[in-house]
Amino acid sequence: MNTTTQNQLNFVLIHGAWANVTFWDEAAASLRKLGHTVHVPQYAGHGANINPDVTHDEIVQSVVDYFNEQNLQNVVLVGHSFGGTVIAKVAEIVTDRISRLVYYNAFAPKDGESLVDQMPEPVQQIFSHLRDASGNNTITLPFPLFRETFANKATAEQARAIYDVAPTEPAGPLFHKLDLKKFYSLEIPKSYLYSLEDIAFPPAPFAWHPAQSGNLGLFRLIVSTGDHVSTVHNEPDMIAEKLVEAGRE
Amino acid sequence: MNTTTQNQLNFVLIHGAWANVTFWDEAAASLRKLGHTVHVPQYAGHGANINPDVTHDEIVQSVVDYFNEQNLQNVVLVGHSFGGTVIAKVAEIVTDRISRLVYYNAFAPKDGESLVDQMPEPVQQIFSHLRDASGNNTITLPFPLFRETFANKATAEQARAIYDVAPTEPAGPLFHKLDLKKFYSLEIPKSYLYSLEDIAFPPAPFAWHPAQSGNLGLFRLIVSTGDHVSTVHNEPDMIAEKLVEAGRE
Amino acid sequence: MNTTTQNQLNFVLIHGAWANVTFWDEAAASLRKLGHTVHVPQYAGHGANINPDVTHDEIVQSVVDYFNEQNLQNVVLVGHSFGGTVIAKVAEIVTDRISRLVYYNAFAPKDGESLVDQMPEPVQQIFSHLRDASGNNTITLPFPLFRETFANKATAEQARAIYDVAPTEPAGPLFHKLDLKKFYSLEIPKSYLYSLEDIAFPPAPFAWHPAQSGNLGLFRLIVSTGDHVSTVHNEPDMIAEKLVEAGRE
Repeated sequence: MNTTTQNQLNFVLIHGAWANVTFWDEAAASLRKLGHTVHVPQYAGHGANINPDVTHDEIVQSVVDYFNEQNLQNVVLVGHSFGGTVIAKVAEIVTDRISRLVYYNAFAPKDGESLVDQMPEPVQQIFSHLRDASGNNTITLPFPLFRETFANKATAEQARAIYDVAPTEPAGPLFHKLDLKKFYSLEIPKSYLYSLEDIAFPPAPFAWHPAQSGNLGLFRLIVSTGDHVSTVHNEPDMIAEKLVEAGRE
Repeated sequence: MNTTTQNQLNFVLIHGAWANVTFWDEAAASLRKLGHTVHVPQYAGHGANINPDVTHDEIVQSVVDYFNEQNLQNVVLVGHSFGGTVIAKVAEIVTDRISRLVYYNAFAPKDGESLVDQMPEPVQQIFSHLRDASGNNTITLPFPLFRETFANKATAEQARAIYDVAPTEPAGPLFHKLDLKKFYSLEIPKSYLYSLEDIAFPPAPFAWHPAQSGNLGLFRLIVSTGDHVSTVHNEPDMIAEKLVEAGRE
Repeated sequence: MNTTTQNQLNFVLIHGAWANVTFWDEAAASLRKLGHTVHVPQYAGHGANINPDVTHDEIVQSVVDYFNEQNLQNVVLVGHSFGGTVIAKVAEIVTDRISRLVYYNAFAPKDGESLVDQMPEPVQQIFSHLRDASGNNTITLPFPLFRETFANKATAEQARAIYDVAPTEPAGPLFHKLDLKKFYSLEIPKSYLYSLEDIAFPPAPFAWHPAQSGNLGLFRLIVSTGDHVSTVHNEPDMIAEKLVEAGRE
């Protein structure tokens, strides 16, 4: 094995809620430029259109299917935001195909909890209200909330453009209570990439890191500047470098 | 409206305690260089000399008068430190003239609280003691405290020069219990610019952000390097850029 | 005294546990390049080989002896990690020879506490277990733990190389309850250099800063990027600059 192969990583990138695979366009290009292999599967219920009824299990199964179809091995599996709940369940099923999990400002709920359970009580109520008001079990984020807390580093125009990709998210997977007993018994190495300006998660002390990261037990911390959804588009080389620091052996 | 006008912001900059308008000299120049309009009113009781008896209401009124005299519209109103308590009250009065409030390592007390109420109990006692010992209702910061916690990034010489501008502050406005019921009902957008090395506020977990910022409800977070009072002089282009990120639509 | 002499600092650098004087090789060179004097004493029980029975008192005495032999004056005394407990006790003895203490991601226990007492309960148990299992009152860190939490910014190869310098540490000094009554009565100025990505200390909210730093009372905060043990080797000019910001008057 020569040095090039040794340092070449095999990434699978899993986007979060209110997004689709285009979330990774620039960062995937940056990673490939560095010599890494990158897969960006579009998981179930998301893409050009959403399926309001998609379940968390179906999302996980669609990623597992992708692993099997592509016969992926030695994968650095990256989950952004909601994607953290997906990679944990995927890791339970295709454990031997994964070399490391990377949480990128991602949720890492305790066993038995949902993504929404991680939120402060008032935010949980807002999520429930938005879901109930939707009439089809979805949540559409108010743009001002998205602009200020997901895309705080963006211009208003860019925030709008990112928002318009996927303003509506199926609610079911966000409220799904996750059985993570097996996950927390696995010995897969884990990293947490934390962006200092990301307050998509309300600033309870301290949501992404060390609160969510701390649930993982032993993990490698990597810190970057940046917000929740615009920095990956605006500074993809920087984020790619951080993903490599997080993902390597 | 062409692109230039669209992106041109109209800043009003409100300095904090133990300072005067010279606090903003370099940052105002940097903002103007970027094409923005900048107003730096010297508020009541401060300037070349201080008035120990000035009240918080008089400070607020002097800024409101400036808004009216200059017929300011569409203002990005920035408050640094103590200035946070000023911009909140100004916003209650000239609400329609303000497009956004920017807190720059600034106090954002809850309704009914004073600036001093934000401090840990031992610091409150020190403030009371310094006030009582002054004989004229002022507070003079001990230089070693100022040097270590307000100007930690400066050389000793620069810290001394900044200190000498305004070593003494009228105590009344710092102890003034603020009626902020109207303020917290306003829908003016808010941003919080937090400098990572600023511990002018004692490191109670976690004073500027997320403790003070968290009082604002929905806000846009912008993070910079820097301390409480020297970085604005030493890296004005960087701070100007952050103020634009914080202040734009 | 001309400007050069005025700004020239006289550093004594005290490394942490699982390390020896080579920890400072690159940073010392960077500091000397900037015109500063640098001393790096190898303290008792450490070096090419360790003495499992060395005591905290012997370590402190060996540094005090170095101060006396070299007749050091006006010293900026820097302690990294465990070195924080050493510089506190040294400062009690050679108080007048020290101009400032600099804690670099270092322990600052309260009076009567040990380094291990600073850890969360589960980590204390791991330390006790590793010590008891050693058979000779030492602690050997498991490499995966070291790689992820001490050298998170390093490549695996570099983490291994740093680890191999001193994988085993005498346990006694880490469990030694420190009498710090005199230390906390001293008026020596103190600085805390905190690296944002350092989680060698488990991410209890918030271990290095503000938890350990907060024990010091008044201190000057300097913040850098970087982890616990690899950044000092990989970015020595940056760390040297931060040590100067922390160490100067």
